[in-house]
Amino acid sequence: MGHATPLLRSYVSGTWHTATDGGVALHDAVTGEEVARVSSAGVDFAAALDYGRTVGGPALRELTFHQRAALLKALASHLREHRDELYALSARTGATKTDSMVDIDGGIGVLFSYGSKGKRELPNDTVYVEGNVEPLSKGGTFVAQHIATPLRGVAVQINAFNFPVWGPLEKFAPAFLAGVPSLVKPASQTAYLTARLVELIVESGILPEGSLQFVAGSVGDLFDHLTSQDLVSFTGSASTAQKLRAHPAVVRNAVRFNAEADSLNCSILGPDARPGTTEFDLYVKQLVTEMTVKAGQKCTAIRRAIVPAELLDDVAAAASARLAKVAVGNPAAEGVRMGALASLEQREEVRRSLKALLDAGTVVFGDPEAVEVVDADAARGAFISPVLLKADPERAEPHEVEAFGPVSTLLPYTSTQHAIDLAARGGGSLAGSIVSADKGFVREVVLGAAPFHGRLLVLDADDAKESTGHGSPMPQLVHGGPGRAGGGEEMGGIRGVLHHMQRTAVQGSPAALGAVTGTWIPGAPRLEDEVHPFRKSLAQLRIGDSVTAGPRTVTLADIDHFAEFTGDTFYAHTDPAAAAENPLFGGIVAHGYLVVSFAAGLFVSPEPGPVLANYGLENLRFLTPVKVGDTLTVTLTAKQITRRIDQEYGEVRWDADVTNQNGESVAKYDVLTLVAKEDR
Amino acid sequence: MGHATPLLRSYVSGTWHTATDGGVALHDAVTGEEVARVSSAGVDFAAALDYGRTVGGPALRELTFHQRAALLKALASHLREHRDELYALSARTGATKTDSMVDIDGGIGVLFSYGSKGKRELPNDTVYVEGNVEPLSKGGTFVAQHIATPLRGVAVQINAFNFPVWGPLEKFAPAFLAGVPSLVKPASQTAYLTARLVELIVESGILPEGSLQFVAGSVGDLFDHLTSQDLVSFTGSASTAQKLRAHPAVVRNAVRFNAEADSLNCSILGPDARPGTTEFDLYVKQLVTEMTVKAGQKCTAIRRAIVPAELLDDVAAAASARLAKVAVGNPAAEGVRMGALASLEQREEVRRSLKALLDAGTVVFGDPEAVEVVDADAARGAFISPVLLKADPERAEPHEVEAFGPVSTLLPYTSTQHAIDLAARGGGSLAGSIVSADKGFVREVVLGAAPFHGRLLVLDADDAKESTGHGSPMPQLVHGGPGRAGGGEEMGGIRGVLHHMQRTAVQGSPAALGAVTGTWIPGAPRLEDEVHPFRKSLAQLRIGDSVTAGPRTVTLADIDHFAEFTGDTFYAHTDPAAAAENPLFGGIVAHGYLVVSFAAGLFVSPEPGPVLANYGLENLRFLTPVKVGDTLTVTLTAKQITRRIDQEYGEVRWDADVTNQNGESVAKYDVLTLVAKEDR
Repeated sequence: MGHATPLLRSYVSGTWHTATDGGVALHDAVTGEEVARVSSAGVDFAAALDYGRTVGGPALRELTFHQRAALLKALASHLREHRDELYALSARTGATKTDSMVDIDGGIGVLFSYGSKGKRELPNDTVYVEGNVEPLSKGGTFVAQHIATPLRGVAVQINAFNFPVWGPLEKFAPAFLAGVPSLVKPASQTAYLTARLVELIVESGILPEGSLQFVAGSVGDLFDHLTSQDLVSFTGSASTAQKLRAHPAVVRNAVRFNAEADSLNCSILGPDARPGTTEFDLYVKQLVTEMTVKAGQKCTAIRRAIVPAELLDDVAAAASARLAKVAVGNPAAEGVRMGALASLEQREEVRRSLKALLDAGTVVFGDPEAVEVVDADAARGAFISPVLLKADPERAEPHEVEAFGPVSTLLPYTSTQHAIDLAARGGGSLAGSIVSADKGFVREVVLGAAPFHGRLLVLDADDAKESTGHGSPMPQLVHGGPGRAGGGEEMGGIRGVLHHMQRTAVQGSPAALGAVTGTWIPGAPRLEDEVHPFRKSLAQLRIGDSVTAGPRTVTLADIDHFAEFTGDTFYAHTDPAAAAENPLFGGIVAHGYLVVSFAAGLFVSPEPGPVLANYGLENLRFLTPVKVGDTLTVTLTAKQITRRIDQEYGEVRWDADVTNQNGESVAKYDVLTLVAKEDR
Repeated sequence: MGHATPLLRSYVSGTWHTATDGGVALHDAVTGEEVARVSSAGVDFAAALDYGRTVGGPALRELTFHQRAALLKALASHLREHRDELYALSARTGATKTDSMVDIDGGIGVLFSYGSKGKRELPNDTVYVEGNVEPLSKGGTFVAQHIATPLRGVAVQINAFNFPVWGPLEKFAPAFLAGVPSLVKPASQTAYLTARLVELIVESGILPEGSLQFVAGSVGDLFDHLTSQDLVSFTGSASTAQKLRAHPAVVRNAVRFNAEADSLNCSILGPDARPGTTEFDLYVKQLVTEMTVKAGQKCTAIRRAIVPAELLDDVAAAASARLAKVAVGNPAAEGVRMGALASLEQREEVRRSLKALLDAGTVVFGDPEAVEVVDADAARGAFISPVLLKADPERAEPHEVEAFGPVSTLLPYTSTQHAIDLAARGGGSLAGSIVSADKGFVREVVLGAAPFHGRLLVLDADDAKESTGHGSPMPQLVHGGPGRAGGGEEMGGIRGVLHHMQRTAVQGSPAALGAVTGTWIPGAPRLEDEVHPFRKSLAQLRIGDSVTAGPRTVTLADIDHFAEFTGDTFYAHTDPAAAAENPLFGGIVAHGYLVVSFAAGLFVSPEPGPVLANYGLENLRFLTPVKVGDTLTVTLTAKQITRRIDQEYGEVRWDADVTNQNGESVAKYDVLTLVAKEDR
């Protein structure tokens, strides 16, 4: 009232769109003041999807994984410079400084993580090659390889109100790295923070146009226009997830639909963790933290505290004592540990759920209806006290009713299997934790509870200092869970990238398959010319360039000498009688290390040149024993070339095949080298 | 009429159930005679699911992957002994001997393949460890690992009429290997063959009770009882797939739903493949084969033959000439190349689709209404002529209307991009093929068409002899496709196993994580005692058993000598001035091979004992250059133990860490050894 607040704009089809109506008011969670208005009226959703597909997608697919990764890093650095501004807006959502850190720095951290994973774990290419070459025939002329290519549609990302920065970024980063454009739609309640985030991104000019679109307000008829190449990642309530999952266009086109819904996550205390142990203290501290961070508005928060029946009263007392010290109020005020819920409506929702939970239990700590607040108007802000309950674990409510606020329920268990069964009664959770130093208990509970969880944390004295805690999804790890948690899976490092790509099995001759993947595949022709491949920089080297060197005969003197020189006097190399008894060798054999050393002696080109170093070996297998008098030949073939975008050299993987005088392979492996891009 | 045919029984809850009504008649596709009757009346579906969950699941989870793999092999061998009986029944579905081979031997082949993959690619354990350990902290006390555990529900497998043996087996094998019980429900039309297959399986007693249930007839209220731990694999029509995917229980519980629907698969001829080339002939031959095998009733069959506009008439003429030689009739008769469709209803369906296709094109070969048949009554059997059409490629019908019989449509293209665009208009396909010797064309089309395909075959002179062909899914490769093809993915080797398991990220200290996965993780305590770990058989060896050996100083003489002895005179080891110029070394360094050879000399225990051989190395990385005078120490730790169920020895993977006098790792790798199970 009085002063006009801004109408949040959408960024679609390459322009900022202002809604054609006045929109709906959004309120400060602490003061109740109007912050902004939101509406997507007038957005042409079909055009936006088409713009993503025809402008954003092609632009992204022009870039290699490494180039996209570098842009994610640049974007992360850019946003880090604007943290303060985002923190200020974040406070209006009811978030304390710690809460904002989780959301804002957490989101920027996801960009950094994907930037770095993309560079380390993906090729500097546009196609991803998955797994090994699969032999499909005896003669070796017919093989297969799985590849992944980006879907040609748009990743529609619908986010919840509780993480207005992290939510969009954790979905955007893997999509972008995959080469798929995003359309971001945050929950309205806190959309003003996401809107500013997107403004910062768009203004930076770092991303290719069309790779990120943004809708402030409702999704309108967007779903009607989805095709089988689009995908949806939804975070929010289970009921909305179900509605969208059953949308006719989603069902008709088999649209990939990934959902994260709030779940009734549990934390299990081990029977060893009695009062006085480190683990008991860790359990209580973590429980209180999870109840109060973001005022409990986290889909990963602990809702069910499953504790040994004989320790329930101890946990209740210790947790209550800690909760009593949590100051609630204006998140900007000194000493406040817990801010407001995101809105008054949200508080009503929590109180309704609390009523249902109280049918099955009693309050241990807190008053659902009243709370003392610091530096704020309790009548206008969406404040609520943390509330700890205890309940009969056999009742349905504690496992089914979620109060999306600072609310947890203590549930007693009587045996390890009982604890596992109670965990499972959540019907699928995003995260769970086990706090125990008893490794046998830990193993049993983790393996028993795993089918019902996307992530499980084992907390003990060993990892407590460095643990990121029960409630924190990590970009390296999958985030999602079965059943009630939505049945989805996000992030998980490169897994989250592949979720945006189509996996295709490609069958063909080694040469045809190699042409597709840009690699040399055993069985494909080798290229030999007068120049040793080690004398070629990346500017000259071709996939398939090869050298065959040898022969060299392995003598008994060689084996004796190598044993003496290295100290590797294993009986199979030194004691004819004992070696004859070995079921695999039946006589003296050369050391495997001797074989690969001799092979290197054969294939190396000694003078200074583009090959800078051998930095490793992979997949070395000794296939046939090398006996005295065997004659070795080695063939080395350039198999894969990775040009680094930020180095003067790249990586070359060579196929090494050492054969004996009968043409049998005695050793096969990959040699990893660093090779200069240009001749110096 | 007259004689009574058997009423097919269901196998549920551990007993053979006979329907409580008379059932529906099933007819011989060739003669029209009644073969059997089918009904699931009286089956208690809730009880069957519960039986799978409480009897089958626990029994399966008692077994390791290797034990389950061995049972799959045993089952395959058993079924192979009963091939003749299955072939005889198969003929009644209208199948020729070749058709039956694809179905029956193909299905048995899937069991063999999973038996062998399970043994080679999965651990002899009940938990699957996926990917690398993820470091989550600087100090190394907090790490994570993804694991996969079997879902605790039932894999509901709904199959199509066209592969009554292969269909059930390709779904069952990965579920069984994962540790998840199956409930198999075939399409009624050919259920008598699946029923006999299941009888053979149950009678064999090879599988644990409850791991396979079978429903003859409709699924009744089965879907109402699905939970989030169950999963559904459906093969059949797109419309049924949509109905089941949107079932309230599936949506509410986020039930994993995998669909394979028929798709409008394409085969693309390269512009290089002009008449007279090998590839032209291969294309025409494959097209005719795919049209006529199983009378075209394959979800992978070629529906769209996309050919260069200028070659269309040549392809039409050559294909017509081949089609004219295909004898249609009683599959048991000499010379018959194509049998009947599965039923008269199916033929009506094909004729309806043909009418729609003819709106956009014309007939090149065949008469939809008439066909000459060999040794059969054309009036009673479900016979139809192969029909080749040609059509305007810009029309919708050829890309959307599928005639599920011996029907394909020729579509002309005018550029490579046009061919890719036409392929994409299928809206998602199970399989496609590219027939061309032009590697540039192949690469462009494969990468362009991949997002729309689950599998792509490149056919050329090189692989033609060994190729399994466009229409054959392989157990090693994913089978499924996006969009119209159902958006699913089956098989693909171990991928299909993991589809039945829940992926969970487990976070904790290295010791806690190691307790869960049964492996040693860097950072976990090492166990050192007075016995060298190489002196322990698998009966004594514990995960974490370790030996530290050294120090040994590397001298210039060592490096010189190694260079001379092996012939590896690379300048970084031999030429001080040149080595000083190397940007990574800046002076003489020891050979990597020297470092690992010396390390082996340090850690080896020479006398005969339980360690039989070093059969390979993995993940070797040289991390810090070793300079003259550096002193090496190596620590070897037992990281993973695989006991083979069929050998007197198992595999031990050792963590090797070679450090210098400053405690820096100079090389890290895994040493792979074979170790006896017991002391001899």
